[in-house]
Order: sequence, then C-alpha cells, then structure tokens
Amino acid sequence: MKITIIGAGSSYTPEVLERLNGMREELPVTDITLMDINEERLNIVSGFCGRYAKHMGLNVNFACTTKLSEALPGTDFVIVQIRVGGNAARINDEKIPLSFGLVGQETTGAGGFMKALRTIPAMLEIAHAVEEYCPDAWIINYTNPTGIVAEAVNKYSNAKIAGLCAGGFNGRNWTAMGLNVDADSVRYDLAGLNHLNFAYNITVKGKPLTEEQFRTIAAYRGEQDAEMCIKLGALPSPYLQYYYHKSKRVKELQEKEMCRAEEVLSVEKEVYRDYADPACETKPASIEKRGGGGYSEIALGVISAIYNDKDTWITVNVPNRGTFSWLPDDAVIETACMVNASGIRPINAGPVPKAVRGLICAVKNYEQLAVEAAVTGSVETAELALLAHPLVGEWELVKGMLPKLLEANRQWLKNFKL
Amino acid sequence: MKITIIGAGSSYTPEVLERLNGMREELPVTDITLMDINEERLNIVSGFCGRYAKHMGLNVNFACTTKLSEALPGTDFVIVQIRVGGNAARINDEKIPLSFGLVGQETTGAGGFMKALRTIPAMLEIAHAVEEYCPDAWIINYTNPTGIVAEAVNKYSNAKIAGLCAGGFNGRNWTAMGLNVDADSVRYDLAGLNHLNFAYNITVKGKPLTEEQFRTIAAYRGEQDAEMCIKLGALPSPYLQYYYHKSKRVKELQEKEMCRAEEVLSVEKEVYRDYADPACETKPASIEKRGGGGYSEIALGVISAIYNDKDTWITVNVPNRGTFSWLPDDAVIETACMVNASGIRPINAGPVPKAVRGLICAVKNYEQLAVEAAVTGSVETAELALLAHPLVGEWELVKGMLPKLLEANRQWLKNFKL
Amino acid sequence: MKITIIGAGSSYTPEVLERLNGMREELPVTDITLMDINEERLNIVSGFCGRYAKHMGLNVNFACTTKLSEALPGTDFVIVQIRVGGNAARINDEKIPLSFGLVGQETTGAGGFMKALRTIPAMLEIAHAVEEYCPDAWIINYTNPTGIVAEAVNKYSNAKIAGLCAGGFNGRNWTAMGLNVDADSVRYDLAGLNHLNFAYNITVKGKPLTEEQFRTIAAYRGEQDAEMCIKLGALPSPYLQYYYHKSKRVKELQEKEMCRAEEVLSVEKEVYRDYADPACETKPASIEKRGGGGYSEIALGVISAIYNDKDTWITVNVPNRGTFSWLPDDAVIETACMVNASGIRPINAGPVPKAVRGLICAVKNYEQLAVEAAVTGSVETAELALLAHPLVGEWELVKGMLPKLLEANRQWLKNFKL
Amino acid sequence: MKITIIGAGSSYTPEVLERLNGMREELPVTDITLMDINEERLNIVSGFCGRYAKHMGLNVNFACTTKLSEALPGTDFVIVQIRVGGNAARINDEKIPLSFGLVGQETTGAGGFMKALRTIPAMLEIAHAVEEYCPDAWIINYTNPTGIVAEAVNKYSNAKIAGLCAGGFNGRNWTAMGLNVDADSVRYDLAGLNHLNFAYNITVKGKPLTEEQFRTIAAYRGEQDAEMCIKLGALPSPYLQYYYHKSKRVKELQEKEMCRAEEVLSVEKEVYRDYADPACETKPASIEKRGGGGYSEIALGVISAIYNDKDTWITVNVPNRGTFSWLPDDAVIETACMVNASGIRPINAGPVPKAVRGLICAVKNYEQLAVEAAVTGSVETAELALLAHPLVGEWELVKGMLPKLLEANRQWLKNFKL
Repeated sequence: MKITIIGAGSSYTPEVLERLNGMREELPVTDITLMDINEERLNIVSGFCGRYAKHMGLNVNFACTTKLSEALPGTDFVIVQIRVGGNAARINDEKIPLSFGLVGQETTGAGGFMKALRTIPAMLEIAHAVEEYCPDAWIINYTNPTGIVAEAVNKYSNAKIAGLCAGGFNGRNWTAMGLNVDADSVRYDLAGLNHLNFAYNITVKGKPLTEEQFRTIAAYRGEQDAEMCIKLGALPSPYLQYYYHKSKRVKELQEKEMCRAEEVLSVEKEVYRDYADPACETKPASIEKRGGGGYSEIALGVISAIYNDKDTWITVNVPNRGTFSWLPDDAVIETACMVNASGIRPINAGPVPKAVRGLICAVKNYEQLAVEAAVTGSVETAELALLAHPLVGEWELVKGMLPKLLEANRQWLKNFKL
Repeated sequence: MKITIIGAGSSYTPEVLERLNGMREELPVTDITLMDINEERLNIVSGFCGRYAKHMGLNVNFACTTKLSEALPGTDFVIVQIRVGGNAARINDEKIPLSFGLVGQETTGAGGFMKALRTIPAMLEIAHAVEEYCPDAWIINYTNPTGIVAEAVNKYSNAKIAGLCAGGFNGRNWTAMGLNVDADSVRYDLAGLNHLNFAYNITVKGKPLTEEQFRTIAAYRGEQDAEMCIKLGALPSPYLQYYYHKSKRVKELQEKEMCRAEEVLSVEKEVYRDYADPACETKPASIEKRGGGGYSEIALGVISAIYNDKDTWITVNVPNRGTFSWLPDDAVIETACMVNASGIRPINAGPVPKAVRGLICAVKNYEQLAVEAAVTGSVETAELALLAHPLVGEWELVKGMLPKLLEANRQWLKNFKL
Repeated sequence: MKITIIGAGSSYTPEVLERLNGMREELPVTDITLMDINEERLNIVSGFCGRYAKHMGLNVNFACTTKLSEALPGTDFVIVQIRVGGNAARINDEKIPLSFGLVGQETTGAGGFMKALRTIPAMLEIAHAVEEYCPDAWIINYTNPTGIVAEAVNKYSNAKIAGLCAGGFNGRNWTAMGLNVDADSVRYDLAGLNHLNFAYNITVKGKPLTEEQFRTIAAYRGEQDAEMCIKLGALPSPYLQYYYHKSKRVKELQEKEMCRAEEVLSVEKEVYRDYADPACETKPASIEKRGGGGYSEIALGVISAIYNDKDTWITVNVPNRGTFSWLPDDAVIETACMVNASGIRPINAGPVPKAVRGLICAVKNYEQLAVEAAVTGSVETAELALLAHPLVGEWELVKGMLPKLLEANRQWLKNFKL
Repeated sequence: MKITIIGAGSSYTPEVLERLNGMREELPVTDITLMDINEERLNIVSGFCGRYAKHMGLNVNFACTTKLSEALPGTDFVIVQIRVGGNAARINDEKIPLSFGLVGQETTGAGGFMKALRTIPAMLEIAHAVEEYCPDAWIINYTNPTGIVAEAVNKYSNAKIAGLCAGGFNGRNWTAMGLNVDADSVRYDLAGLNHLNFAYNITVKGKPLTEEQFRTIAAYRGEQDAEMCIKLGALPSPYLQYYYHKSKRVKELQEKEMCRAEEVLSVEKEVYRDYADPACETKPASIEKRGGGGYSEIALGVISAIYNDKDTWITVNVPNRGTFSWLPDDAVIETACMVNASGIRPINAGPVPKAVRGLICAVKNYEQLAVEAAVTGSVETAELALLAHPLVGEWELVKGMLPKLLEANRQWLKNFKL
C-alpha cells in the first residue's frame, strides 16, 4: 500500500505520519512518497519525517521527488495539500478585498476566488498525471477551496477525488462536546457547499435532538449565534460569519495589524527551523501555534473506509447528482456520504431548512463561474463570477478590484491573457 | 362586460379609462365599478372619471362603493391597484432601511418587504371575496410587490390572478426603440422575478439579434450598464441597479433631500386638486409629473387576450410549475406567457444566462419567506426573510432594523403580535 | 418565399398546392421546388402540379430535381414527406409482426420501429443538407414516425425541425364537432408522444368542459371508448387502440385479407395513372380513396405562424426541455406549443391524468433506443429497443422477430452490419 | 428490547427465532410477543416456538395475543408477516388472471394487485396502532407486495416502516456465488421497485466487474437470461420473467396441475401438524419443502443496523425523495440504502441502464393507482390501475376480469362498495 503526498513540503505533513502511526493495523502502508516542487522545504520536511517515523517505530519506505511522473506510479492514495503561490500570495487574497471594504479571506469571497484561479490549473495537472500514472488511485484532497477544486477535477478529468474538509464534521463535534456524547453516535443531514454548509436533522444514537439539546449545541457552537441557529433550524459552518456578520467581520479584519497570512508566515519560519534541526525527532512545540490541523483525521478516515471497504458515514465534497434537486447535477456539494471501496456516494437528505437554499444557490452560481474562469482564463467570466458572488455583487467593485487581483497574481495565472 | 377597479381612488384610474376608450371595439365594457376604502379620494376620482368618460364619448355605467360585497358581483375582471398605508407608509419603507445604510425602496429590499407584509392580508381578503362573489373573474393585479402578492394569492386562495408589471415589457421597448423596429415584432425569454428579471434570447421578427444590435439595445437601456449587459448576455430590469450598483445607489438615495414617497405625496396633492375641479374633464397636466404609468396598457392587453381568446405573448407573474427546474413549483416567476381565454401559461424558456440563476434563487428564497411571514404573522419568519434577502443578509441588521420596521407599520400588521 | 418539397413524388403533394392556393395572401410563395429520388413519380406529380396550379390560377415558379444540393439553396421552408422503401417496405412492417401475434402497423410497435430505422438516416442526410444549403430554413416534417424522426434530427443536427402530425389536433376536432363549436375556440393540454398522446384540461372559449360535455365528446371520438375516456380524464389518440384494445386489434388485422399497405399500393396505382393523364388538371376522384390527408392544413398553418410571426397555438413534436419533469430533457414530445417567427416552444401544461404517465415513459424509453439503434446501426440496441417496447417486451419475441425484420429491410439499413 | 411479530401464526416465525439465536450478543432481545388473529395457528406456532427456544437455550419471555392493543405497547420492532385471506385467497390471485391468459402470481400482475387491495387496509390498521401504542418503533415488514404496502404506510401514516424483501440481495448472492467471493464485499446500484429491480454497477471489494465476471454472474443467475442480462447491463429480479418471458411463463403456469398456492396449502398442513406435535422441538423437515424463507436474515440485519447504530448497506423499499428524478418523490422504490439508528436513507445511484426506465415508470404508475384504489375503495381507480399495468393494459381485460376478482375477494374489501 503506497501513499503519495503532494505538497509534502507543507508543515502539516508530519501530522499525517502521526495519524498513520496510530492506524498501523487498519492501514498497512509500506511506501510513502513525498513530492513537492519546493525542493528546500521538501528536504526539510522529509528529513524530519524520517526521524519522526523512526522515533515512533513506524516502518515505511520513504521516497522524495519533485516530479509527478516519479511520485505517482504504484500509488493507491494521493494526498494533495498544495498552496500555489504560498502564504505570500495569500497576503494579497486577504488584503486586496479588504482595501475595497470586502471580506479578505483565503477561501471565502474574492480572496478564495483568487486562490481558486491559482489552484485549479495545478490541480488539473495533478489529476491528469494521476489518470496517466495511477488511474485507480484516489485523490484525497484538502487543498482549498476544496469544493471548487473538487468540482473542477470532476468536470475536467477522470481521476477519482475525495474533496475533504474537517469542517464537515463540525456538527458532529459540536454535538458531541455540547452534549457530552460519543461523536460516533452523531448523524445529520448536511446541506450546502464547502465552508457554506448547514447541519440539520441532527440525531444522537438515532434520536432527534430535543429543542433544549439543540439550544445547548447552538450555544456551544458560539453564544453569539445561538438564537440565529435556533431560528434557522440548523448549525451553519463557522465561515458563515463572513455572510451573517459581514460588516462586523470586515471591520475586525481591517483593524488587525497583521493579516492571517502574515501571522502564518511568521509562525512557519519557526516551524521549519525546528523541522530542520537534525536533533528534532518529535513534533516541535512551534507547530501547535500553526493551527488549522485536524485534516489528517478525516483524510485517513476516508482512506481507511475505502481501503478496508467499510460502509462509513463521512461528509465529503462530491457531485450533487440529484441529491438536492435545485442544484445542478454537476455542482459539487458538501454533504453526508457513504464511503466504501466502491466509492463515495451522497446519502439522500431531508428538505433543507427554509432560509438557506437561496444563499447556497447564489454561492454555487459563483463557484461554477469560478471553475469556468480558471479553466478558460477568461477575464469576462472572472468578472461574472465576482458579480454573482454575494460578498461582491456590485459592478463597480468588480471593475475596481478584479484588475488589481489579477495583476497581483499574474505569475500564477498562465492561462489568462493579462 | 363588467370591470371593477379596487383601489379606484388611485390617481392612475383615469389612465384605465383612457386606454379603454381606445379599445372600444375590442373591449365592449358596459359597467365599471369603482371601489375604494378611502371615500374622499373615491369621490374625487369617480367624479373626474364621469366627466372624463363623457368628454371622450365613452358610454359606460359607473358605480361607486366602499364595499367588496357590493363591488364584485357580476364582475368579469377585477383590476386591483391598492396601496395599504398609502404613500405615508411608503416613507418609512424608504427611510428606515436607508438609516441602516441599506436600499430604501418601495418594492425592493427591506422596504418592499414591509409593503408585502402590509399588502398580502388585504389582497387575500380581496381574493377570498372574489372567490365568493365572482369566482370566474380574473384578478388583474398591479399592486406591488406584484410577484410576491401573486404568490400569496396563488398559494392561499382559488382566485385567478394575473400579476402584472409594465417592467416585463422593458426588453420589448428597449429593443423597439433602440433598433427602431415594431415592438410587436420583439420576443424574448424572460427569467426571474418581478423587478428582478433578465431578458435574453431576444429576437426581432424571429431573427436573433446580432452582437452589434445587442450592443445598441444595451446602450439604449442605459450607457452605464451596457458593458455589463453584454457580458451577462441579458438585459436586467432597471431595478437590478439596487443590486449591481448598491453602494452607489444607497449613497445617492441618502443624499436626496426628499425621498420618492415624499415627492409623490407632493405631486399627488396637486393631481387630486385638479381631479376635484368640476371643470376638469380631461387628464390634467399635473398627472404627467406623477410618473410610473403605463400599467393600463399591460392590464388591458391581458384583459383583451383573455376576453377575446387571442393567443398573445405577454410577460406575467405566474407560478413556476417546472418552467425553471431549479425554482420551486409554487414559486411565482415573471416570465413570458401565452395568454388566452383558457388562462395564462408560461412558455418554455431556454437555459438562463450563466450568471443570474443564483441571485434569482436567493431573492425567491426571501420572497417565499416574506409570503409566509405575512400570512402567519411570525416575527421569526420575518427575521429569516430579511436574513435570506441579499440586500440585508446580516444578523445584526436584521435584529437592529426589523423591530423599527414592525413598529412603524404596527397599524397595518394585524396578524402580528407586536 | 421559396418552399421545397422533399418526397414530392408523393400522392399528397397536390394537396399542398390546393391549400397554398387558399392562403395566397397569407403565404406569398413565389417558388416551389419539387424534389424526389424517384424520377418517374416526380415527373408524374410535377406534371400534374403544373396543370393543377394553372387551373387554380396559382402563380408560382416550379422546379424539379432529384438532388438536395439543387433543391435546397434559397429555401425558406422544407416540407419533408418521404417514405423510405415505399409501401412495399411497409408491407413487411405490417405483416412480420402480425405473424408473431403482434400489432403490425406502420408507425406503432415493431412496424413503426422498422420504419424509424429506415427513415432516420435519410432524414439526417436531409437535415445535414439543410444545415449546408439553407441553414435558416425550417424543416416541416410529416414523415412518420414523426416524433422519433424529430428527436433524431434535434439530437444529431442543428437544423430546425417542426415535427408535425394532424393527430395533435384530434382533440380540437372532436370537441368542435361533438359540441358543434368553432375549432379555433378549443384549447387543451396535450401530454405524450406522437400517436401516443392524451388531450386533457379541454376548454372552449376558455371555459372548462362540463362533465356532460366531456361525455359528449368522448362519445363522438368513439362509442367504444367513451367510458374509458371519462375514467381516464383524457382523450387518447386513436392509435392508443393498439394498446388498450391490443388483442382485439391484432385479431382484426390478422383476419383482413389485404394489409393496409397492400390496399394503399392498389389505390395509388390508380392515383398515379390519373395524375399522369395530360388531361387531368384538378384533383382526381381516386385521391379520395387514398385517405390519410389533412397534413397540409397543419403544415401550412405552422409555416404561416412562423412566416407571419403570429403567436399561434399548435400541437407539435418538440424537445421536452422540462415541460414534463419526468421525461428526459432531450425527449421529443407531442404537445401544445406557441409558434411564431422566433420558433416553436412548448407551453406549460397542467399535471397529467393519473393513469397515463407510465405508458408514456415506457414508449419514450423505446423511442430513445430506436433513435440510438438507427444512428449507431447496433443490433444490440435494436434488441433493447424492442424489449423496452410495451407492444413487444418479451425476449423470445425479440430474438425471433428482429432477425426477420432486419433481413427484410437489409437494403435500407446501410449502417447495420447484417 | 422487545420484538412483536404480527402474523405470528405464519410457518416462518420459527425462522426468526433461529436467526435471533445466532445473534444473541448483537440483539439482546428480552421479550417477544406473538400476535395473530388466527388463534388456532397462533397456539400451534407459539407452542412450538417455546419448545424450540428452550431447545436452543434462547432465553426470552414469550407472550401471545390476538390484539394489537395488547401486543404493541413497549415494542421496539414490529415484524409484520400477515397474509390477508391466507393461501385460500391466493388461489384466486393465481387462477383468475390465468383464466384470462394473464400472469397469475401472488405479487405480480393482477394477482399482486388483489393482494395489495386486501393487505393495505390491514397494514394501515397496524400502522395506526403502532402510532398509538409504540410510536418510536420500526415496522419491519415483509408482507407482500412489500413495496406497495410500504408506499401506502408512508403516505397514510406516520409510522416508520422498513419494506423488506430478500430479493434486494439477489445481486449480492449471485455475485458471491458466481465468483466465489464474500457476499459482504459486493455492492451495487439497485434501480426499480420490489420484484421489479435491476442491479447494476456491481463491484467486488470496490472493483467494477470485468466483462467476463459479469458474464459468469449472469450465467449463474440463469443460463436462459445470460445474454439478455449482458445486453441490459444489469441483473433483473427473477420476477422479471413474468415480463420478459411472459407468454412462456403463462403457458407453463396454465399447464401446471396445482397452482403455487395449492401446493403451499398442502405443504403447510404437514408443517402445522409437525409444529403441533408436543415432541417436536427443532425445525421439522417439512418446513424445508415450504420454500421462500431467508427473510429473517434481512429483517434481523435491518433491526441490528438500527439497534446497534451501524452504518450498513442494505436494500430496502423506501420513498424515492429524488433518488431517481424521473419517479415521483413519494413513490416507494427498492434501492440500496444506508441503515443506522437515525433511519434508512437511499444512497445516490448512478444513471440506470438504458432499457429499464420505461418499465419501472409504467409499473410504478400502476402501483400508485393500486394504493389509491385500496385506500379509497374506488372501482374506477382499480380499473385504471389494471389499465396502467403492463401485464394487463387492455380495456377488455380490465372490464372482463376485474368484476370477477372483486367478487372473489368481496369479504376482504370492506371499503369497496360491491
């Protein structure tokens, strides 16, 4: 059993090893290939991974490469965690929209849009390489924006992709912690898109929540929104803050000295310094400051469900194919699925809460235009994508901001004529 | 053939007579009943109508009443043009949202929402009276928000309603004037909702427009938006300015000394003074300043198509029933219909322009909640309606603004517990 | 204005002239080109047409050709009325199924299937020639099976096609004659496919029929079925006899000495002898025996609605595109449409009578396989088509009958490897 | 944990005990209540069950009753296996249609229709009692026609019902046995209805079958149909023989001396004699001759998946709710589901094989009319149901056969006015 990690120079790679170590019997991995186009980071991270694996007594063969053609042959699962343009490009994603009074965030709004434009061509290159070198392999993606990326790969390649996000399990975690019950006993319907989902019809051991239990969970999710959640009849993704509290969040973001990307850049310097230390053979303290982990749990959960042919309930970004009749069949949605060796299939969900359908449709409209813009390199389609985005939506903003965004990302937008 | 006009005290009523006069052979009306709950205005307008009809040589029997039970029996067509709360209430619709930095407008956004809450109970009362007193009659409605009103009447009564708006013919008029062709030779698909529609697939005498012709029309519609229209591949309703140029429009509205309702109130004073003058027997000059006319052309066009059983292409607000598969079957849409004696039926439309579907879904989500809130009197549903509205959408705005709006409209919201 | 008639050697061609003569002002045709691959018949019919037109004082230029490339340039409307294999091939369509105890009929069942296999390649050749020589022209088709042919042309070419059948107006005619009202005052919803349609929600001057009126019409349609129609809540096409009275009809067909094709062959001999007579300049008595006319009324009605840009209610075979949500979008259905210069569009229909949906779905499943079989020349798909056909449906029948049918049609099935 | 068995006088009841005995740890049942309205059979079977349980060392409390009000309180799972009218009524189901040259069979065709009319009122009585006495309990039904019964219960009650049939696992068993692989490693999409389903997209351990493997399985399913299965691209339920080999099967049924119901009656005499023997404490040899077992495996598999909150892949009859967009939302379908404590939900299936959709639609149309006829007692709807049934479909047959069927079942059709 061979796993290839693409974007292995990421600071998150050791977390995958740690998780794998705890699942040795379930996932008898013999080979791990680390691939990255950034050779320096790759060397640092692979060096540390070797020491870390040895320290844990995890017996696997490591290989390192900067080429897909070397990395992929023989692979069963391709974990992808790339960041085109790195955190440097992310600074633009966050700052440029903010300068127009809009949400500046790496997955939502105009920032997420630019990340999509940079990422999709790279993801399609990977997907086509998978088709060529290991067509039976699953791409296990947690590169953001994961829903949009999954839609692009599903539309423009034949590679199999599981579009993952830890956020699909938020409803499970809030319920488990809010009610002090076992997370495995929680199920729900999940409607919507990545970072725009709503958990509803929640059950614990098959029992629907009482009104009081729902209140408790809603409060656990965040005091500020508890009343709204109760009225909505659903638990929204935390990223809904950028919609439901837009002005407030924009103001807060504008008031911060450093944007998130700048913070991360600073933390990562420390992390890589630690990883590079030949004496360092366990996870350094610095990585805790990085945040954003937890993906490896979902990723390896999906891999195990497929590899071991377990029928497992997992939330994944998959093509809609009729699950919600009011969204296009080829729209990727984030929803509860049954995962086993035969694939990943959405489970029939109940009617969605009455106030969320419109927003989901609006953002999906944007997402489909974002995919088209990324693939065609059409500035016109990019304009329409932003015009359709509920967080932009004004022609003056589109005309003012898009040229700046495109200019700042010029080097990663090869298929645009700029 | 009997026509009853409800809300006949409106300054627009004489326009109906004028139009009828020009269609004597097509529409042999013998009886017109004018009904209004405002007796003073009713007397002024009916007085003028009598003189005006006589002046034109239009030979019909006039009756006047303040009661539905007296007005409706024997009626073939019920023209409804009411304004619950009058232009006084409209001032709140325009000013309160604006004070929160939001679009203040009588049909769009939070203002239109309040108009819907005030209007729907009154419209349902009329619809139920029609069911009782003249069940075969058609309600010809141009009370705003006409799409939402039509949805409420379709859902909660068995009365037949044609939800009209002159705006559905904008595409026809722009094309005819922009290209200097006969308006009757223009056809198109119309996707969307009242005041949120998009004309596309435009043809003149069956020929699709050339790119240059489309540019010409787009420019005729408004220089400012021509480029956007070309990229959208559609001509949006002028009301889309409140979305696509939101910030700019809000700023302009905030800078105006008088809001539109205040202007109208001032003009109307003059109009009614003129109508009341016993010497006045033709349309006074003051009515030209009123603006917003043109409805009677559509209204009597629909009446003629039904009465004369002509197969006529007219844009109407009707239940979707599968016309656009991504909208609920019971959602009222504004679209091109075939109208004849057997009713009003949407015509199959081509795929919508790629950047408009999401916005239409989002606003329809709001509209359906608005209808529910109006009928149930639920503050909670009202909150969700505004949260779902793309022009509001933030929880802080909902919580801050809704109580003020409800308070200002308390006297017209009998089914709310306030 | 130029009309080209393909299959002009048909005995029906003079009927088109006769109708055109009555519509001189509405349809100012200047040129008629008669095209047929059967030169002998073409000469006979064109000779007669010349004399007939002169006799009527119809002033048009006639041309004659056996080539599409000569016939099509400059054409506005292409009337197609071909019969691949002629009535000789039709004898097989009728007799072979009957020998297996199945309906033997030229449009329904296995016979209609063979006609589809023979006809579709020829129709696609015509459609591609239209794309090349007169891309703006409309194909006005009444070659059977017209629904299946229209589906093939819509799927595999860009030519515009109106798939016509006089049968779509049956409901109108029965109502008009049964109730002694003007045919133009009748409207209804029409659900289903060519020769498998159901008229319902019938109105006269917009008024729904009373129960008694419906009984009267049902009885007028045919005493035998009146009770069934009343229970169905619809008037089925007369061709439904092959389903609802299958055994009885098969027995009757088996008991006839001559099949319909043989009768027609015999009558046509007489007709052509008369047409060929240089003294014959008006429709000969023999043509009355031919039967099956009436198409030219519909055909020229559609041509006039398009040419004169009238909004006209006509039943046509058109792509479903969501009209009935339970049929594929690309399925051609026979339904009420609005026809004008901009094209032919289905009108939104009400919910179908509760007992007809399944049969329509089943036959449409067959029809889509028939189109695929004709285009691909796949015997396997042909087997599935017959297996899916409600009038065949048994594997033993498919395996026994299909080889005989293919063998008998070998010369017209060039794309099958037989 | 309490299980109630309704129709416990059935000869199948001991099989449930046997299976339960093998699942002691998984299903810690403490109480079993046996309920039947036939007291004699109930006593015989409960007597044997007591001895059998003792013999196996299965420690549960048994109770016996003829009343729902006594049986249901406190129940977790209600296993229903009733046969209204018994095998005596079944004789009519088989013989009357056969006398008209139609399939005579207890679940398919006109026979199944009569069983539905007899059974649905009794099932609704049970469902309403469940609502009253144990609203959280699941009805685990294997009373035939199980799909139609499940649709009636879902439409007309709030009770939770799992409509089961061993036939949904046929595809799994054929694959496992044909390829000699573990049944648990097999998954597929299942399209269609009870006794009218098609297994496709079959995988073993997630790997799609090779063409050769599919041939092997198709041959294992039945040599006669292997070629047809390969062309269909699916494995049909064995009950499809009544469609795809209709004439042949009818002939075989007509040639048999005893019908199936008569054979069963004869075997059952022997079985009950054995059960009644106080010395008999293990399953007697006679029960092997009965056939038709295997249900308890599915039934207890579903109970375990719900009780133990396992995410399990099981084929169940459930409301469609968008799973197949071309079937009504409220149509019950037989399809692959995820079953756990929160309920039973269809899993998104791939596009169906191209030649099966029509037949499924046609039979579902019949089924929905059958449910309506059973609930309303309308002879007219019963006529339409048979007219819509692909195995009847002719008006002469409907008018000839239905009165005979209704007359023979008069005593069980209380809501029909006969």
